[in-house]
Amino acid sequence: MNTQKTFFVAGGDLRQAFVAGHLTRDYTVYALGFDNNVELPGGVIPIESVCELHAPPDYILFPIPATNDGEHVNMPLSHKHTKLKDVLEAAGPDTVVFAGKAGGALAAMCHLQGLPLIDYMEREELAVLNAVPTAEGAVQIAMEEMPTTLFRQKCLITGCGRIAKALIRVLSGFGMDVTIAARKYGDLAWAKVYGCHGLPIRELATRAGEFDLILNTVPAILFGQKVLKQLKPGCLLIDLASKPGGVDFTMAKELGVKVIWALSLPGKVAPVTAGEIISNTIGNIMEERGIG
Amino acid sequence: MNTQKTFFVAGGDLRQAFVAGHLTRDYTVYALGFDNNVELPGGVIPIESVCELHAPPDYILFPIPATNDGEHVNMPLSHKHTKLKDVLEAAGPDTVVFAGKAGGALAAMCHLQGLPLIDYMEREELAVLNAVPTAEGAVQIAMEEMPTTLFRQKCLITGCGRIAKALIRVLSGFGMDVTIAARKYGDLAWAKVYGCHGLPIRELATRAGEFDLILNTVPAILFGQKVLKQLKPGCLLIDLASKPGGVDFTMAKELGVKVIWALSLPGKVAPVTAGEIISNTIGNIMEERGIG
Amino acid sequence: MNTQKTFFVAGGDLRQAFVAGHLTRDYTVYALGFDNNVELPGGVIPIESVCELHAPPDYILFPIPATNDGEHVNMPLSHKHTKLKDVLEAAGPDTVVFAGKAGGALAAMCHLQGLPLIDYMEREELAVLNAVPTAEGAVQIAMEEMPTTLFRQKCLITGCGRIAKALIRVLSGFGMDVTIAARKYGDLAWAKVYGCHGLPIRELATRAGEFDLILNTVPAILFGQKVLKQLKPGCLLIDLASKPGGVDFTMAKELGVKVIWALSLPGKVAPVTAGEIISNTIGNIMEERGIG
Amino acid sequence: MNTQKTFFVAGGDLRQAFVAGHLTRDYTVYALGFDNNVELPGGVIPIESVCELHAPPDYILFPIPATNDGEHVNMPLSHKHTKLKDVLEAAGPDTVVFAGKAGGALAAMCHLQGLPLIDYMEREELAVLNAVPTAEGAVQIAMEEMPTTLFRQKCLITGCGRIAKALIRVLSGFGMDVTIAARKYGDLAWAKVYGCHGLPIRELATRAGEFDLILNTVPAILFGQKVLKQLKPGCLLIDLASKPGGVDFTMAKELGVKVIWALSLPGKVAPVTAGEIISNTIGNIMEERGIG
Repeated sequence: MNTQKTFFVAGGDLRQAFVAGHLTRDYTVYALGFDNNVELPGGVIPIESVCELHAPPDYILFPIPATNDGEHVNMPLSHKHTKLKDVLEAAGPDTVVFAGKAGGALAAMCHLQGLPLIDYMEREELAVLNAVPTAEGAVQIAMEEMPTTLFRQKCLITGCGRIAKALIRVLSGFGMDVTIAARKYGDLAWAKVYGCHGLPIRELATRAGEFDLILNTVPAILFGQKVLKQLKPGCLLIDLASKPGGVDFTMAKELGVKVIWALSLPGKVAPVTAGEIISNTIGNIMEERGIG
Repeated sequence: MNTQKTFFVAGGDLRQAFVAGHLTRDYTVYALGFDNNVELPGGVIPIESVCELHAPPDYILFPIPATNDGEHVNMPLSHKHTKLKDVLEAAGPDTVVFAGKAGGALAAMCHLQGLPLIDYMEREELAVLNAVPTAEGAVQIAMEEMPTTLFRQKCLITGCGRIAKALIRVLSGFGMDVTIAARKYGDLAWAKVYGCHGLPIRELATRAGEFDLILNTVPAILFGQKVLKQLKPGCLLIDLASKPGGVDFTMAKELGVKVIWALSLPGKVAPVTAGEIISNTIGNIMEERGIG
Repeated sequence: MNTQKTFFVAGGDLRQAFVAGHLTRDYTVYALGFDNNVELPGGVIPIESVCELHAPPDYILFPIPATNDGEHVNMPLSHKHTKLKDVLEAAGPDTVVFAGKAGGALAAMCHLQGLPLIDYMEREELAVLNAVPTAEGAVQIAMEEMPTTLFRQKCLITGCGRIAKALIRVLSGFGMDVTIAARKYGDLAWAKVYGCHGLPIRELATRAGEFDLILNTVPAILFGQKVLKQLKPGCLLIDLASKPGGVDFTMAKELGVKVIWALSLPGKVAPVTAGEIISNTIGNIMEERGIG
Repeated sequence: MNTQKTFFVAGGDLRQAFVAGHLTRDYTVYALGFDNNVELPGGVIPIESVCELHAPPDYILFPIPATNDGEHVNMPLSHKHTKLKDVLEAAGPDTVVFAGKAGGALAAMCHLQGLPLIDYMEREELAVLNAVPTAEGAVQIAMEEMPTTLFRQKCLITGCGRIAKALIRVLSGFGMDVTIAARKYGDLAWAKVYGCHGLPIRELATRAGEFDLILNTVPAILFGQKVLKQLKPGCLLIDLASKPGGVDFTMAKELGVKVIWALSLPGKVAPVTAGEIISNTIGNIMEERGIG
């Protein structure tokens, strides 16, 4: 509809390339930072430097995270380095900036320039929908690593948030026997409602040995020496918690426990879907704010 | 274990009778207000008046709600009337009072007497688990009223809280085609994750005519004249929202829309389970507080 | 399409009235035997006697069963009695006769007259789809009779045919703990695959006492004195097996076991759907035979 | 129990090693053909040649298939070659021979020697339970190959047998939109009952282009040039049908269609479970025949 309006996609992994592709339905899209062997979706206009933009874009899109060092744009698919500052110089007075996990440095720069900054990673719908590729990625790893079917094996999920709920659906479809370990009585009640067993987290140390597969979603060291020692030989432990994770990895190695720390699964196992989720979220934000 | 400790169950419907029964496992239980043709579970000691208690009970249990008029105990299964005040006079300095939807009058009395009052209806696990009999009751009504199978019919659920989530599980098992109407993008995302369609609530008026069954869980008039006029002939509307409900009942009647306002389903369709949920919740409270 | 072609619907319950309604999409439909307070769907032409047909119909549709006594049409919704013979006299040389559970008498008459007779109750798709309203009807009864939720109760299904499979889906959606009792190892394997426990039927007598709800689908007396004596107090036994059923009803009464023999559920709990299933099946038959 | 009785496990892949392990619970187990870097489960006695058996074994177990050339035992995990004949020479008059896909040559030899031969691959429960690891293996491949989530993608399964039914359960858990293509109306009815869409196989050529993932279970060339040409770009086609498969592989290559022919998945993706299924089946056979 607004093909006159322009979107400037600055950096990111394969997901952002797909986001750029989706945005072409409604915008003229320029993309910087996809020069390393990436085939951009049809319609996206690749540029090699910010100066190629003839006019200030209506929207700038930074990736997840926007920057790793507070200075340069996160551009894993480019040979070049581009500074946040240089991208923001392309902005005009009405440009709106989107970023995922914007971080303090970018926020400060936008603030100084008077540019509105919207962090799409803080949106609830993105977090909910991202739980699905995360769950699928975890299941894929479990299937690759386990010499049994998932069917009828015993699985423990620690935590009862979005990822846990997405996992329950998929794992129940496989016929796994799923237990949810949680601290709150409300979460243990949800576990029951969703057809799982509930395990009060304080009993983790005494009961961790019952499971064939453990999926941790809690970013706190639940799996220290005491619990790791209880695990059944052959048990697979997949840690889905963001840093610092939920496992004492050194101890796990020492005890011979097989642990896989699986981070950022959506972009890895389902970049197309992950890109769709981001572009839909941006669409929701625009609708909600009456922009776009 | 603590058979020396005593529980005084004062009033309530069949659920409370079952709660009393469950409590006999751990306590000496006296029950007042079950004289109207009720067979109390074995072990419960029926009393006809507060004075029959020889010593202050360790715990007093009021029903849901504790009182309807702020003065008398809610005692639908008794021929007699008993005042809240008279029950509380039985308390000693260490008695703990439990009530469901305690209400201001009871709270004030307990406060004045220095008695701790715990409202078990405010517990998350009770609310979560009560969603199950509520959902089952709604399904039973739908089955009784509809001349079709639930299988492959189109169902709309308004709201995406606990009851909606419990409904989704059951209705999906029937092979219903379920749509969730919600305001928040996060809830619409959950709808998708749970295998349903999402409907932004602002589109309710234009799309309400697509459904064979509508289950409202939102306590706000979503179903006024405009929406009611859209409904498909033969559509069944079940309102599960507590007062004031979600339907303009007068208008519905005028328009010939079949509406059923179904309140307090747990106690009606599954009193045994509803009693279990309450007694388990009381057990959790005791464990959490280190009492009992 | 073939509005010139005519269908003569002779007798039956509410289901057949709905079948007649569905058939009006493609045919001119005459219906006999719905005079007792039945509102026929729009477009169906009610007749009071076979003579009102001006020309031989292309198709005659008898109900399920076509006749109860081998002489008269099964017409529960009529004040009159009509003979099979009189209906068949309306047939021309090219008329095709449909019937559900035709029975020997009707078959013989058609044979003598040289009329092709198609028993739609012998179609696999009808049997499969009818399992759904049967399962729903059974669940409705269970909900009405049990003072607990279905959620987390233990259910035994005897047999592993179509109805059992339809039941498993619905009951699992309720979060029931389902066990399938079967004789064949293959069926016990299916039970596992569908997330149930398997119980070799020879262990029925020793394990029947574990269940809160039992649904029998096997038309052979599995529930004689020995098994009935084992049942848990309060256990509900629903017999879905056609005559002679699977329960020693006299003994059950003597022992105080609550048994409900639920027959012909599709027509009772979901006549609209049951009618749709029949009319779709007739459509399939016509397509397969290149008639219609 | 019968630790005096002996089992002689002759050849096979990792599955048979696990079978041997399971059998040690009840038998003295000798295993031949696992010398190539295989760690046999504890309790299994490895032998290097048939002569090491001091007495005729009670049972001989051949793998799946028993032989590839009609002469030698199928021994993929051994450096040596052993003839069927040599293994059978170890048999005594009461030895019972088990084999999976025995084949004519072995059957003839057993017949000549008067040895009872039981083909465990013909058992229904084994076929049903093997459908589960087959389905899981197919899902694993789909996850590895697709750049999207499985969630909300459109999947076509051709055929409605055991593997299709196992696939439906798992894929529905992922929130896939599943369609079943089948020839029989009865199977299309099952598709509906299991929450899928049904597609009459004659419409395959016109509708194959709607799907993101296609799983073929029919061992007949359904996917020839005409259908392959319709497929959506990026569609993944996994052929689970045994030889000759269901796809014109040459044509698929020419047209650039991504096809994976996935055979013998249980032994590859879940050897432990596949071994359990075989040993449980052998247990059932023994129980049924009153041997063991």
